[in-house]
Amino acid sequence: MAEDVILLDAWASMFRMRTRIALEEKKVKYDYREQDLSNKSALLLEMNPVHKKIPVLVHNGRPVCESLIQIEYIDETWPGENPLLPSDPYERAQAKFWADFIDKKLNVPAWRVWATKGEDQDASKELIEILKRLESELGDKHYFGGEMFGFVDIALIGFYSWFGVYEKYGNVSIESECSKLIGWTKRCLQRESVVKALPESEKVTAFISERRKSLGLE
Amino acid sequence: MAEDVILLDAWASMFRMRTRIALEEKKVKYDYREQDLSNKSALLLEMNPVHKKIPVLVHNGRPVCESLIQIEYIDETWPGENPLLPSDPYERAQAKFWADFIDKKLNVPAWRVWATKGEDQDASKELIEILKRLESELGDKHYFGGEMFGFVDIALIGFYSWFGVYEKYGNVSIESECSKLIGWTKRCLQRESVVKALPESEKVTAFISERRKSLGLE
Repeated sequence: MAEDVILLDAWASMFRMRTRIALEEKKVKYDYREQDLSNKSALLLEMNPVHKKIPVLVHNGRPVCESLIQIEYIDETWPGENPLLPSDPYERAQAKFWADFIDKKLNVPAWRVWATKGEDQDASKELIEILKRLESELGDKHYFGGEMFGFVDIALIGFYSWFGVYEKYGNVSIESECSKLIGWTKRCLQRESVVKALPESEKVTAFISERRKSLGLE
Repeated sequence: MAEDVILLDAWASMFRMRTRIALEEKKVKYDYREQDLSNKSALLLEMNPVHKKIPVLVHNGRPVCESLIQIEYIDETWPGENPLLPSDPYERAQAKFWADFIDKKLNVPAWRVWATKGEDQDASKELIEILKRLESELGDKHYFGGEMFGFVDIALIGFYSWFGVYEKYGNVSIESECSKLIGWTKRCLQRESVVKALPESEKVTAFISERRKSLGLE
């Protein structure tokens, strides 16, 4: 049967980047449908009635929601090429732990850094602490899972497109604070899947500058 | 090799109940170590240095943290008896979605209902809405996954021990608002794993009454 794969998406979201990277790693062909989040489509509301959020992966008419769940689904549905999660249960649990850590700990300070009027020094400090914690988990490994590009890399790399935003509005230098992590982003950016999924940093920064103006933050 | 399984635990937490139910379903023998959360043990801090929270499952000396990740780990490590997640990738993704929904949507209102001075009517209303949403997902099924007791049931049933707390401090009747969900709790309570893991409702209510006093909430 021909696969019917649709991704309901919004280009600047680091979460949709995850799903796109996973699909690209598996070489799955998909139809990409940009969503206007200020005017949600009937399809989005039908496919994610609970959270009404992107990304939504629609596979043969059935929706899968939440980006980390989508990556696992993609890995299980197209298991052949480029495994995204380790096969060992303990290593799988560790990968899930760090991806969950990113969602629980990084999102809020990363958002506060740009979405606050004036400078939110606590958010900047917390953001750097979380990135340093992740860097310490990375250690001297090539990717978070070792030699294999996978789940945690995919969960984190989308934030790289936003580093310019964090540096500009958080008044921090991620490059000087977390040089090993920057080395890791460069390795990730050698992968075609990542290059295809990540928008240019400058485009995200310009978008957030406009967004801040429309929110009356500057 | 003899299995060495330790559960770092605190009896009233609905999260540790999940891990315990999963271990009981798999008939895994484990050593249960109650933790004093006001004076965290060196073992807890060593085994969960990131979040410093229970439950922690320590298997042959290696820690697995976060209750939903622990259930998956238990299911993958002891796959023979009573599968906890469906084998079909789409059904697995759906089960993970609803367990994630419980963690993202139910925890906060459930906590606010008792941890607020006076009555938090918004929290009570939200709590009932979330429970009704879950009840609608349950529909006429025996368990959330159909005939098979599994991931979503385990993620939710621990809250049942707290229903008395929610009714007392939230001034709601879960029984009259969500009668189908109460029917489901009764089916779950026929399982030995659930009976073993859940403390008595009265004990949780007495504990929270003391906790509210110590926090100056009453």
